[in-house]
Amino acid sequence: MKIVVVGGVAGGMSAAARARRLSEDAEIVVLERGGYVSFANCGLPYHVGDEIPQRSALLVQTPDSLRAALDLDVRIGHDVVAIDRENRTVTARHTTATGPEDVVLPYHALVLAPGAATIRPPIPGLDLPQVHTLRTVPDADGLRAVVGAGARRAIVLGAGFIGIETAEALRIRGLQVDLVDLAPHVLPPLDSELAQLLDDELRANGVRTHVGVAAESITASPARVEGDNRGPDDRGTVQVHLSDGSVLEGDVVVLSVGVRPDSGLAADAGLELGPQGAIVVDSEQRTSDPHIWAVGDATAVRHAVTGLVGPVPLAGPANRQGRRAADSILGAISPARRARPVLGTAVLRVFGLTAAMTGASQHTLQRAGIAHHTVHVHPGHHAGYFPGAEQMHLTITFAPDGRLLGAQAVGRDGVDKRIDVLATALFAGMTVDDVAELELAYAPPYGSAKDAVNMAGFVAQNVLDGSLRLWYPEELDKVLDTALVLDVRTAREHARGHLPGALNVPHTELRERLEEVRTAAGGRPVRVHCVSGFRSYLAHRVLDQAGFDSASLSGGLLTLHAARPDVQLVRG
Amino acid sequence: MKIVVVGGVAGGMSAAARARRLSEDAEIVVLERGGYVSFANCGLPYHVGDEIPQRSALLVQTPDSLRAALDLDVRIGHDVVAIDRENRTVTARHTTATGPEDVVLPYHALVLAPGAATIRPPIPGLDLPQVHTLRTVPDADGLRAVVGAGARRAIVLGAGFIGIETAEALRIRGLQVDLVDLAPHVLPPLDSELAQLLDDELRANGVRTHVGVAAESITASPARVEGDNRGPDDRGTVQVHLSDGSVLEGDVVVLSVGVRPDSGLAADAGLELGPQGAIVVDSEQRTSDPHIWAVGDATAVRHAVTGLVGPVPLAGPANRQGRRAADSILGAISPARRARPVLGTAVLRVFGLTAAMTGASQHTLQRAGIAHHTVHVHPGHHAGYFPGAEQMHLTITFAPDGRLLGAQAVGRDGVDKRIDVLATALFAGMTVDDVAELELAYAPPYGSAKDAVNMAGFVAQNVLDGSLRLWYPEELDKVLDTALVLDVRTAREHARGHLPGALNVPHTELRERLEEVRTAAGGRPVRVHCVSGFRSYLAHRVLDQAGFDSASLSGGLLTLHAARPDVQLVRG
Repeated sequence: MKIVVVGGVAGGMSAAARARRLSEDAEIVVLERGGYVSFANCGLPYHVGDEIPQRSALLVQTPDSLRAALDLDVRIGHDVVAIDRENRTVTARHTTATGPEDVVLPYHALVLAPGAATIRPPIPGLDLPQVHTLRTVPDADGLRAVVGAGARRAIVLGAGFIGIETAEALRIRGLQVDLVDLAPHVLPPLDSELAQLLDDELRANGVRTHVGVAAESITASPARVEGDNRGPDDRGTVQVHLSDGSVLEGDVVVLSVGVRPDSGLAADAGLELGPQGAIVVDSEQRTSDPHIWAVGDATAVRHAVTGLVGPVPLAGPANRQGRRAADSILGAISPARRARPVLGTAVLRVFGLTAAMTGASQHTLQRAGIAHHTVHVHPGHHAGYFPGAEQMHLTITFAPDGRLLGAQAVGRDGVDKRIDVLATALFAGMTVDDVAELELAYAPPYGSAKDAVNMAGFVAQNVLDGSLRLWYPEELDKVLDTALVLDVRTAREHARGHLPGALNVPHTELRERLEEVRTAAGGRPVRVHCVSGFRSYLAHRVLDQAGFDSASLSGGLLTLHAARPDVQLVRG
Repeated sequence: MKIVVVGGVAGGMSAAARARRLSEDAEIVVLERGGYVSFANCGLPYHVGDEIPQRSALLVQTPDSLRAALDLDVRIGHDVVAIDRENRTVTARHTTATGPEDVVLPYHALVLAPGAATIRPPIPGLDLPQVHTLRTVPDADGLRAVVGAGARRAIVLGAGFIGIETAEALRIRGLQVDLVDLAPHVLPPLDSELAQLLDDELRANGVRTHVGVAAESITASPARVEGDNRGPDDRGTVQVHLSDGSVLEGDVVVLSVGVRPDSGLAADAGLELGPQGAIVVDSEQRTSDPHIWAVGDATAVRHAVTGLVGPVPLAGPANRQGRRAADSILGAISPARRARPVLGTAVLRVFGLTAAMTGASQHTLQRAGIAHHTVHVHPGHHAGYFPGAEQMHLTITFAPDGRLLGAQAVGRDGVDKRIDVLATALFAGMTVDDVAELELAYAPPYGSAKDAVNMAGFVAQNVLDGSLRLWYPEELDKVLDTALVLDVRTAREHARGHLPGALNVPHTELRERLEEVRTAAGGRPVRVHCVSGFRSYLAHRVLDQAGFDSASLSGGLLTLHAARPDVQLVRG
């Protein structure tokens, strides 16, 4: 059995290693176009930021170590340029002392793991030498060299995961950093009211964010005075011209607007491609050619919630796909080990904050036309009476029948745990009733008897059984026009800042002051709020049972502030 | 509707609060025998240890705050002494200026939340004033007073969760601490190879552990010299006499050998009781009397894995049971909101370590006669190439058909997250194939592309499909007698310490040195090991395919050391 693997990083190397463990007899060749295999690509921004100072730490395996441990024939610098499906061979081009040379390798099974390539939008100036990307070890070397040479100002185009990690890394290294995204907020997969918290954290740490604007061109800076446009390595500085007319000046630009499946080779070979050029595979990772498998960022997966098929470039699924391809090549795999739909679980560190998500965002559900509810809660990451409790912003989305559809969270601690729990719940197809009943580990340093996850489940149950009716920040303007806003915080909290026209009745006084509320409402609906949504829920229950048309602000002022940073509170 | 709740801490107060949110019309009376309601009982050891210095932090609610927010009639110092089921009344005794007074309260629905009581074994001397417990706020006050008065030496009887937390707290306060348990290891719910890690941590922090011994009596210390037995508050010091003949001397003893359902009132009322005197309830928390519900530590629950019915005193389930009882009293509850079996998920901090567990331990499965496999893995809590990765000890147990049965973990970071994920998986009835496929949040500061949880799933899959055969520390003596031990670590690691008689062939050299192994084995089985089990798995695959009777040590030397601390390695 001759197995050829094209691409030696996450998915490809997982396939090769698993294949060896299953078969000592297989001849396994890994062809990697770059100079490194099995490197820690998710660690690249942290190497740029010097949190991982040793370059060698990123090089988890080498061709030698892989030959010794797994008897793999790993060939770096080998770019596969053609697949001959009929004769089952691949042609790999590599550079020798005498020039490029092609080698033709036969296969019984071929695994394609070409990964993804940086999207290069049609922006004039992208080919300037000051424009970098961050996908490979040499990319990281290049960025470190520019920083080492004294670059002072960086412009990062694209505020997705890698763009934000890169902006953070460069800021940690002391550069002035501008972060630009066409989307209306940073980290577009996150819903806007949570993304605003990241924007605040980026700005608090000195990263200047520019959202809702496009980079229209990049040009070499004109010299205003002799030498001021020389840049750190004599390549000159550049200007990035934005669609709002502003101009950013920098020594270095990092392009990070996203990736697309690097499926050119598969296309040339006539393999079936899906949306965005992703290679179509079955549940065993087999392509439309029964002798060719594909794994990783270049393949199409089905999203567990939306059912949409497309590329989802994530390391975890890539690794498991590689393992699965090897299982498929070397033996029958049981139905339970076939590919599952992908949840898109992801996490990001932004200075002191963590943002994490799984499943479908509100935005995705809206675009897909999937009926859903959303609740916002702000529990502590552990018991409030234990020192150091940090408040989280946690949202879950769920279907009218109670099925969990997604979860997002931002906070300083415990965020990754909650999203991992909810990703597991989503994987299992749980409902919010299940989420409410999850039995999670509790001791004061770790959680609460009613964990953050349970709390989200409880609130969702209340929404579904009608005991809680919510209103949302996007309704604010209409609410201010047509309803009585009832602030059930204390008089002191109210005086420090409140919504215009809000009536203040602390929730502890509400039962005695119902007539006052009735008079103030004058037939209008009552829209209650507090800080996080808990006291307003208690007040809503009182009002609802007293016959008011009442609703409680989802997530309270904490969510409102994040969703509508433009809203000014009135003092006094 | 008149609702009377007996017991105002976790489950009882949850029931009362939920009942109010569902009904403004209900008359809700909460009768609490102690002086505090809704206090943070899980925080008591941390108050003793001064991590929660403010006593008021433990008092989350007061009768006044509960009246204001929820219109609850909370009466502290009211001990319910009788239930008249026929006339639907309870009699509560309280102390007035003129002596005890009984008040009779009618109910339509009665919720019993009496909690658990400290088990007091028949040890002579338990009634000495130096012997404390730690279940209530006054208990914590008492222990703090003794420490404040200068106690220097404490003896904690019982090394369960609260016993260990108390020992840690007293040690943090600077006392000499002896921790005694009859079980063969500390934290009996944890399997021995993980519990040993806690014992090491306790000892490293100066707590002297005594396991496998009983306290047989407690006596006042005789004076050796005038005054040396006076103790910190002139009550004299005591001696604890252990079953191994040794004597521990201390200023204070804390009894923490466990709890039992405090179900005397329910028994007197003729309600059906189950094992250990726990109150039997249905899936809506209703007792054998249709007008009486019961929640919390005094009730019997079904264990999700073993199916055994009994008390499981945990705060999380108690809170949800309270909520459920209110739902049942005030409206029909849907099947999805009925009680689920309990997993027994729990977590403990022991100085710098965290121990957590869910489902059934190996020990529990053995005793219950449930067929199972166990795997031990030692992954980092986040990517190894990112600074600060801490190794975890993670075990999972699973049935021959692949169903997850339990998980345990010990480590310095990320332990609670993995157990919460596995608790969620267990709740969902997942198999190890599912666990392998879980899509968890990955970025270098948070996890790995193949998360610790996935790794445990992969290893379990390998066991089930026959590609990995394991051997275990408990087989060590037999293995040393009858097999060739093959150490596949490097020559340098081997020289630093190895099992007696082990042959060292690094896994990277194994393919070339198979004949050497064959000769050394001389027909005996080959039992491979490395440090954590990964290299020995690779070696096992080579040996297995070369026709050897081979097996790989589960968890490697890391697990072996913890399971068999008596085993001495040979140097050179």
